[in-house]
Amino acid sequence: MAVYTHLSAEDLSELITHYDVGELVSAKGIAEGVSNSNWLIETTGKDGKGARYILTMYEFRIELEDLPFFLGLLDLLAEKGCPVPATIHDRNGATHRMITDEDGEPKAVALIEFLPGVSIDHPEPVQAHAVGHALAQLHLAARDYQERANQMGMAAWKELLGDCGDDGLAQIDPQLPAIIAQEMTYLSENWPTDLPKGVCHADLFPDNVLMLGDEVSGLIDFYFACTDFFAYDLAVTHAAWCFADHGRQFRPNVSRALLQGYESVLPLTDAERDAMPILARGAAMRFVSTRAYDWLNTPADALVTRKDPMDFVRRMQFYAREGQAIFSAKA
Amino acid sequence: MAVYTHLSAEDLSELITHYDVGELVSAKGIAEGVSNSNWLIETTGKDGKGARYILTMYEFRIELEDLPFFLGLLDLLAEKGCPVPATIHDRNGATHRMITDEDGEPKAVALIEFLPGVSIDHPEPVQAHAVGHALAQLHLAARDYQERANQMGMAAWKELLGDCGDDGLAQIDPQLPAIIAQEMTYLSENWPTDLPKGVCHADLFPDNVLMLGDEVSGLIDFYFACTDFFAYDLAVTHAAWCFADHGRQFRPNVSRALLQGYESVLPLTDAERDAMPILARGAAMRFVSTRAYDWLNTPADALVTRKDPMDFVRRMQFYAREGQAIFSAKA
Repeated sequence: MAVYTHLSAEDLSELITHYDVGELVSAKGIAEGVSNSNWLIETTGKDGKGARYILTMYEFRIELEDLPFFLGLLDLLAEKGCPVPATIHDRNGATHRMITDEDGEPKAVALIEFLPGVSIDHPEPVQAHAVGHALAQLHLAARDYQERANQMGMAAWKELLGDCGDDGLAQIDPQLPAIIAQEMTYLSENWPTDLPKGVCHADLFPDNVLMLGDEVSGLIDFYFACTDFFAYDLAVTHAAWCFADHGRQFRPNVSRALLQGYESVLPLTDAERDAMPILARGAAMRFVSTRAYDWLNTPADALVTRKDPMDFVRRMQFYAREGQAIFSAKA
Repeated sequence: MAVYTHLSAEDLSELITHYDVGELVSAKGIAEGVSNSNWLIETTGKDGKGARYILTMYEFRIELEDLPFFLGLLDLLAEKGCPVPATIHDRNGATHRMITDEDGEPKAVALIEFLPGVSIDHPEPVQAHAVGHALAQLHLAARDYQERANQMGMAAWKELLGDCGDDGLAQIDPQLPAIIAQEMTYLSENWPTDLPKGVCHADLFPDNVLMLGDEVSGLIDFYFACTDFFAYDLAVTHAAWCFADHGRQFRPNVSRALLQGYESVLPLTDAERDAMPILARGAAMRFVSTRAYDWLNTPADALVTRKDPMDFVRRMQFYAREGQAIFSAKA
């Protein structure tokens, strides 16, 4: 949670002239995003009545060549009525522009619609239902969109966990090397190969959903979006939404509501339903791998809060034990 | 620049019920403030038409007992027509409330009016004039307000520089121990004792001024406000506004405009004008002392950008050389 780059009001005002959004009225760096800097921008608006936008500057990780995928996806989804922020195009129709930061580095920036709503920490079932519904809508709406490989798939988990090493993993928890070795073997040998695929959000944590009361007002932060099994995306969302107390407490009502919400738009096939337990174990492993890597590579006194990998080890073990029961019932 | 504490949407919604501001619509942690966490909050507003506020959580430094001074000052200044954000009182009339953060720590929070405007990096003279004008207005408006000692006065500079030690200062620049020893002797022996006093902002950097075009739309961040010489506050503002290129380049047009703006409301007395050079040297020393301390005590790889103390050593030396000439002319 940081703003990595200083952008002066003068820079921002100049940038804004390239868009048909009126003049700059206010700009606040916001503490969101880990791989980019974001500003909440207010302008006089096209019609002089005021308008708000999120300005994102891409700092790390995201390859410039992927930006058209992400920004075009927002456009497509917004056009199809999904609750996502549309990309504001500049006067030449471009979805992003290059600007020079204070160190003389060229950086890509995009102007994105601001959406109201707040992120919920402890969702009610009715809210989880709305999220499942919105996820399925997204899967349907982007069906014919272009492809992008999932760069956080099983190969990436293996690489990250390999970098941690057994010694590193044992620092987190003495049991962890054995747990992970066994689980990775199981996942590698049994991962499904033929399920319905398409564009997935792939990171739909409560942080990335804006809600107004019980309605989803925005799905945001599509920078892990990729082509993968739809049911895997549902499994990621399940792992992210259906637990409390750092993965210690499963919330069955929230789980049922999420699955029902999803299936009210896009019913799972039998093959998808059968695969849900392993997909959920894999989803948990995906976050174990990144969190373990970050845990071992982030100084303890850094301002960034380290997220405990054990929160997702607990989920992974829960899914191994209970996944069959949870996912077998038709919603 | 950070948000130190996580506040859930649920916590925020609950907090908002204690104020007559409608319901929570949006909340973004903003990357402002170094000793507190801030959120830009949108609500449905009293009248359902929407309203915005800054929610501040006091994390460090500020003693709870000082909060009534700071928040009452905003109220007084807003009431007298100064461009400052008013404090929003809760339903019981309180300027701040205590809430429990996620670690169970009690923290003070205050809801403050949101003001439009952006902070200017490279001010034009007409903007500096407006800032001088607003500063003098502030000095007049708060004349009868309560007192608070300046905790960042000369005693604090001495203590901070003593903590740095000559070895520490020499790490910043080999000449620095000698420069500072000589200057501190001069300041101690010649610091004025009898000039017009009152409430000062004491930290009126461009960061703490919001502007809409050439108008000041907001003076913010009053958490160094204290009772001191008005002319010292003007000297701090001068040091903060009238240089470019890290203190290497003095901007005479901006300087003249700032002083003229101030004097258009509150002309300097002869004693104040005579004292301006030493006050400006002291103002520069105040920021040398805190920056040197932070420079030596902030890890180089921390996410917080360290500010170079030499930027203000250059100003200090400039004032020692040129202060007489700059400040002697009547505005």
